[in-house]
Amino acid sequence: MWCVSEESRPRARDIRIQTGIFSPGKLNAITDVSGVMVGHCTVCHGEGKLVPGKGPARTGVTAILPHSGNVFREKVPAAALVFNGYGKSVGLHQMNETGTLETPVILSNTLNVGIVADALVEWCIAKNDDIGITTSTVNPVVGEVNDGYLNDIQGRHVRKEHVFAAIEGATSGPVREGSVGAGTGSTCLGWKGGIGTSSRVLPGSLGGYTVGVLVQSNFGGVLTVDGVPVGRELGRYAYRDHLEDSSPERIEDDGSVMVVVASDAPLDHRQLRRLAARASLGLARTGFYGSNGSGDFFLAFSTALRIPHEGEAMLNADVVANDSMSALFLAVVEATEEAVLNSMLKATTVVGRDGHVVEAIDIAELSALMREYKRFGR
Amino acid sequence: MWCVSEESRPRARDIRIQTGIFSPGKLNAITDVSGVMVGHCTVCHGEGKLVPGKGPARTGVTAILPHSGNVFREKVPAAALVFNGYGKSVGLHQMNETGTLETPVILSNTLNVGIVADALVEWCIAKNDDIGITTSTVNPVVGEVNDGYLNDIQGRHVRKEHVFAAIEGATSGPVREGSVGAGTGSTCLGWKGGIGTSSRVLPGSLGGYTVGVLVQSNFGGVLTVDGVPVGRELGRYAYRDHLEDSSPERIEDDGSVMVVVASDAPLDHRQLRRLAARASLGLARTGFYGSNGSGDFFLAFSTALRIPHEGEAMLNADVVANDSMSALFLAVVEATEEAVLNSMLKATTVVGRDGHVVEAIDIAELSALMREYKRFGR
Amino acid sequence: MWCVSEESRPRARDIRIQTGIFSPGKLNAITDVSGVMVGHCTVCHGEGKLVPGKGPARTGVTAILPHSGNVFREKVPAAALVFNGYGKSVGLHQMNETGTLETPVILSNTLNVGIVADALVEWCIAKNDDIGITTSTVNPVVGEVNDGYLNDIQGRHVRKEHVFAAIEGATSGPVREGSVGAGTGSTCLGWKGGIGTSSRVLPGSLGGYTVGVLVQSNFGGVLTVDGVPVGRELGRYAYRDHLEDSSPERIEDDGSVMVVVASDAPLDHRQLRRLAARASLGLARTGFYGSNGSGDFFLAFSTALRIPHEGEAMLNADVVANDSMSALFLAVVEATEEAVLNSMLKATTVVGRDGHVVEAIDIAELSALMREYKRFGR
Amino acid sequence: MWCVSEESRPRARDIRIQTGIFSPGKLNAITDVSGVMVGHCTVCHGEGKLVPGKGPARTGVTAILPHSGNVFREKVPAAALVFNGYGKSVGLHQMNETGTLETPVILSNTLNVGIVADALVEWCIAKNDDIGITTSTVNPVVGEVNDGYLNDIQGRHVRKEHVFAAIEGATSGPVREGSVGAGTGSTCLGWKGGIGTSSRVLPGSLGGYTVGVLVQSNFGGVLTVDGVPVGRELGRYAYRDHLEDSSPERIEDDGSVMVVVASDAPLDHRQLRRLAARASLGLARTGFYGSNGSGDFFLAFSTALRIPHEGEAMLNADVVANDSMSALFLAVVEATEEAVLNSMLKATTVVGRDGHVVEAIDIAELSALMREYKRFGR
Repeated sequence: MWCVSEESRPRARDIRIQTGIFSPGKLNAITDVSGVMVGHCTVCHGEGKLVPGKGPARTGVTAILPHSGNVFREKVPAAALVFNGYGKSVGLHQMNETGTLETPVILSNTLNVGIVADALVEWCIAKNDDIGITTSTVNPVVGEVNDGYLNDIQGRHVRKEHVFAAIEGATSGPVREGSVGAGTGSTCLGWKGGIGTSSRVLPGSLGGYTVGVLVQSNFGGVLTVDGVPVGRELGRYAYRDHLEDSSPERIEDDGSVMVVVASDAPLDHRQLRRLAARASLGLARTGFYGSNGSGDFFLAFSTALRIPHEGEAMLNADVVANDSMSALFLAVVEATEEAVLNSMLKATTVVGRDGHVVEAIDIAELSALMREYKRFGR
Repeated sequence: MWCVSEESRPRARDIRIQTGIFSPGKLNAITDVSGVMVGHCTVCHGEGKLVPGKGPARTGVTAILPHSGNVFREKVPAAALVFNGYGKSVGLHQMNETGTLETPVILSNTLNVGIVADALVEWCIAKNDDIGITTSTVNPVVGEVNDGYLNDIQGRHVRKEHVFAAIEGATSGPVREGSVGAGTGSTCLGWKGGIGTSSRVLPGSLGGYTVGVLVQSNFGGVLTVDGVPVGRELGRYAYRDHLEDSSPERIEDDGSVMVVVASDAPLDHRQLRRLAARASLGLARTGFYGSNGSGDFFLAFSTALRIPHEGEAMLNADVVANDSMSALFLAVVEATEEAVLNSMLKATTVVGRDGHVVEAIDIAELSALMREYKRFGR
Repeated sequence: MWCVSEESRPRARDIRIQTGIFSPGKLNAITDVSGVMVGHCTVCHGEGKLVPGKGPARTGVTAILPHSGNVFREKVPAAALVFNGYGKSVGLHQMNETGTLETPVILSNTLNVGIVADALVEWCIAKNDDIGITTSTVNPVVGEVNDGYLNDIQGRHVRKEHVFAAIEGATSGPVREGSVGAGTGSTCLGWKGGIGTSSRVLPGSLGGYTVGVLVQSNFGGVLTVDGVPVGRELGRYAYRDHLEDSSPERIEDDGSVMVVVASDAPLDHRQLRRLAARASLGLARTGFYGSNGSGDFFLAFSTALRIPHEGEAMLNADVVANDSMSALFLAVVEATEEAVLNSMLKATTVVGRDGHVVEAIDIAELSALMREYKRFGR
Repeated sequence: MWCVSEESRPRARDIRIQTGIFSPGKLNAITDVSGVMVGHCTVCHGEGKLVPGKGPARTGVTAILPHSGNVFREKVPAAALVFNGYGKSVGLHQMNETGTLETPVILSNTLNVGIVADALVEWCIAKNDDIGITTSTVNPVVGEVNDGYLNDIQGRHVRKEHVFAAIEGATSGPVREGSVGAGTGSTCLGWKGGIGTSSRVLPGSLGGYTVGVLVQSNFGGVLTVDGVPVGRELGRYAYRDHLEDSSPERIEDDGSVMVVVASDAPLDHRQLRRLAARASLGLARTGFYGSNGSGDFFLAFSTALRIPHEGEAMLNADVVANDSMSALFLAVVEATEEAVLNSMLKATTVVGRDGHVVEAIDIAELSALMREYKRFGR
């Protein structure tokens, strides 16, 4: 009941919203980066009044795998950039020190991070029984957003098996978006947010690389769609009461966002950190402003290089020259913006704990506004 | 001849471009923050063919003072955030370690930073003859952008006296914008950039604080004005050839931007670093994407506290609570966006070395586009 | 059987090893900082051959509480400094963004971090039933070292109840050191390491503040005791084979160290980060060199200020002036060095999985060397 | 008169002080790294009473070149680590963003940084006349310490020609140490400091790489020589009065240190940052504790890779694997410690402004102490 299929809803380009100047890949998804796989496990049960520990549950897991092999054995170059550290992501210190990612990236809800990280450790041990015995330990990477407005977040309903299911179910095709997996309970810019993805393919003269982005959107601000002030027009934004009213309510504008950037361009840690930094610029185009309680964490990895777990004393690491980086940066900005829009467009209305409702954005209303602001037919 | 007065040109609000939801202060300038003063010295002479070391000069200095007193003796809390470190700003390490600003902030051109820093040291010594003798040394803070397309940048035409003139001429009233001071030779998003400023005053229920921003705009990207895709519509952006042409030219999309944020909110170093971080989001709304060679440095200071150079073992440092920071962040985003727009609108066309021309954006053309995109009359 | 009581073993000052120039507090422990409490729970069972998931277990938990109240409701200023990020600590991003610590600090083993973080969340929810429902979520802070040489680390034998026991058992008196709690399975500089603590009290003319340090020592290097080259003299250090042998074994010199610094000096986040940074210097005096796989994380908090979870828009934050910080820095260096020595002196020999033995340093042998190097009787 | 030749004074190994376990290279200097060159220009004139702007001058310049070619055209991988940012070094932001060094590294005094940076820009333009015209600008890298106790630092006596002389005079042979070049006026741990250098060559089984270090020592603390508490024994250290006296003087324990690390190991920016971080550990062994006003900046570069200024879209960057880094880290620690000792041993007594005297450490007295503490003849 609560969960209308997102299949009935369009992505941005389906309703002629085209942001940016570069073209998307075939799937317009992070999976356009060859080898990248995404899986979801939605955890959704119960309804009505919140009974902490019991439900209702409106949460889940999303897993992003850099390749289909054993990531612990064949790591990829990676970096994390923390825009606003008010969040509980784990594994980023080691990723930035070693410059590598050695597990799938798992997204979930804030209070579930411990259980998810433990499950990811268990999953890696099952594949690599020497971990912590005859070789080093493993560094699980987990991101999160707070879905507590809809979800019984105290209940930590995401369990081991949900993490395993998301990883094992990951595929390289189209990516489900909206109120699925780790995006089940998230809220963005006043409407229902969730998982969104997009990609860009650079012209051959700029290297021909693919950049893919996946976001878990859950942040505050004033929604802007391809420059159109939708939040302002529809009167849905924080601070509105403060501007119009003499006795405003306390602002509830916090929230977080996880952005995962993948590319087949050969890039080292330093360069991937630079890519990750540009994610904030794509978010800004949608209305994001990094509110105080927003934990905004951006990860980037390259699929072009494999770093063996144990091996040679020397690594091959041919990389793109600094002077050829700019187009990759713009691709990150564009794909991040569009991924957020996709997350909101594909998201379906969710009714959660205590009857809390977060509405999906109305497609007809949005389309009308876009037309009014001359976004269609140009 | 080359330098039309910027008085003939409008600011964004003069042509009904109103970005954001908060209201500007009286001057809509960084000088709305009580005590803050700004001064310019424009260095402009010669024309025609570049003779390195001789000219033509199209550069200058802009000075921002946190208060009218002796800043070395009465420091202010401050922080710097480096978005893209591809720049030559000086003084930021010490500012971030001590959490204080102890000189005026000086903006100039890239290769002139050494001379400017030395001049600033000399100016401080003249006011504080104990520097380096019976007390500590002084930490000059200088930002810069590359104006070498118009300016004989090798010539380092900014000299000591220009720095002194900018500081000594600083006032607390309206701020000249566009092709003046450190903005004389800068280029932004394909048109003439320069100095721009804007401010926001929070409603009393959000603290009633003022946030002011001054930018030196010199970056690449695709111009967006209050969401309207002006750069795309007018066909002026990097990568265009790559998208349309089989044999594109090398991209020239680099450039830099300095953003100075001031506030009368009582904030410590950590909080000011958070404010500075939000400047990138305001830039992003105008088309900024942090290209490889763009040195993007953001500074923030608070005028609410004074930190004596020598003094008590304990300092008073009452500060805004974390939970009350969000509106300040949004104010930074909005004022930064508008400051960039003001820098471009007020900028006049400049003809520089080797006859290079950087055109001011055409106000009539821009207005027509804004109208077409329904930005006026709503 | 395996676990000889550490009571039979001396601390550094008991055998006249006195490092540094400042004096320790009454307990020479982190608990000299008024209000700070420490608790351990040792998890030790089984022996013989490793059966992953079964044992033997040689691990545990150590909890450090900044005060006896509800830390979530009354946070303390805090900062983390990551010297070598090759580790899995959690909670540091948010601590550094908000500048506060809002849970006890829990130390444990590397692969157990997920379960420990989850337990800490559960413990906080039990005390604050509004977490994630009507107020924000909670940021658990957990540090870790790899004890896999002795411990069945895959087994993640630290469970919820062990975390609760460590927190609930925390007291403000003397601190047990050596092979207890999170130090049960750790190895340091070739000998048994573990938990160690020390403190310094500044003279009144330097502020009269107390600085306390607790370490979980587990790192490699060449042991130096108050300057005496003990590791070199006793021939126990990595690289020895490389220097003497033509076919050396692979180096096993990794390991990690957690350092927790507490002070009653009023310090803000920026200043506490500076304190934390000095921990590396104290470690260096004992032979630490930050080997590749060593996750070296330093935390510092102040007990002088309380930051209410929800409250005033403005916070009082009077802090020590920059110019009065140096003595606090030296106190951190000295107490960190001595805490490492105490961790090794108090540690007892542990026999772990597969019969692996890590020996306690021989007190008589050490004393003889110290005497030979003229460290006694001066 | 004031400047006794340092030739009469020994280096550490000349008086049988041997720190660490690895062996130095042939010269025991940074110039053991093939291609690295060092040059000094000492600026020393006048005596007696300080007349600001006139003298006496006790300062200078030290230049470190990564190779003998055109560094702007053939950059080297590089990184900077700021331990304590209370200093005025320039060029580090861009070095860390691009991961490259493109000029010689110049060391000088604090207030002279502006003039030195400008001179370095001029020198680079003379070699590359396209800078800022048809190619990018140049990023000068300058470090500094405060020599104001001996030197008329307000006078900024280091001029353009001194910088040129240091660079042009740079050679790849033995390096002059002590009170020369940028070390002319520096003070370290209560005695005369200055320039010092040392190196380590790893055994072939650890890669066989060379690591060289050069320091400009100017910091406070309690001198420790190979573990022997020399400062304490000779009663020369800050805080002594505070510990013994009821009315202590204000502490004067600030100062700074620049450490430049070079290696022929193929390392990228991320890895070089890790090397630079270990410099603090070597300093700590000599008594360094990072006092408040100490600007402690560490730079590292690799000579194994050359990065063309303009060129290929792809760069070769084969690098040492993470797991093979540890021995390089220990080499940095050891060479840094020994370089500080060399800087003090080779330094000669200097009489400076207002008759201020900073004494060279007494070799006989030191040797006696070392013997007493059983450091000789083992």
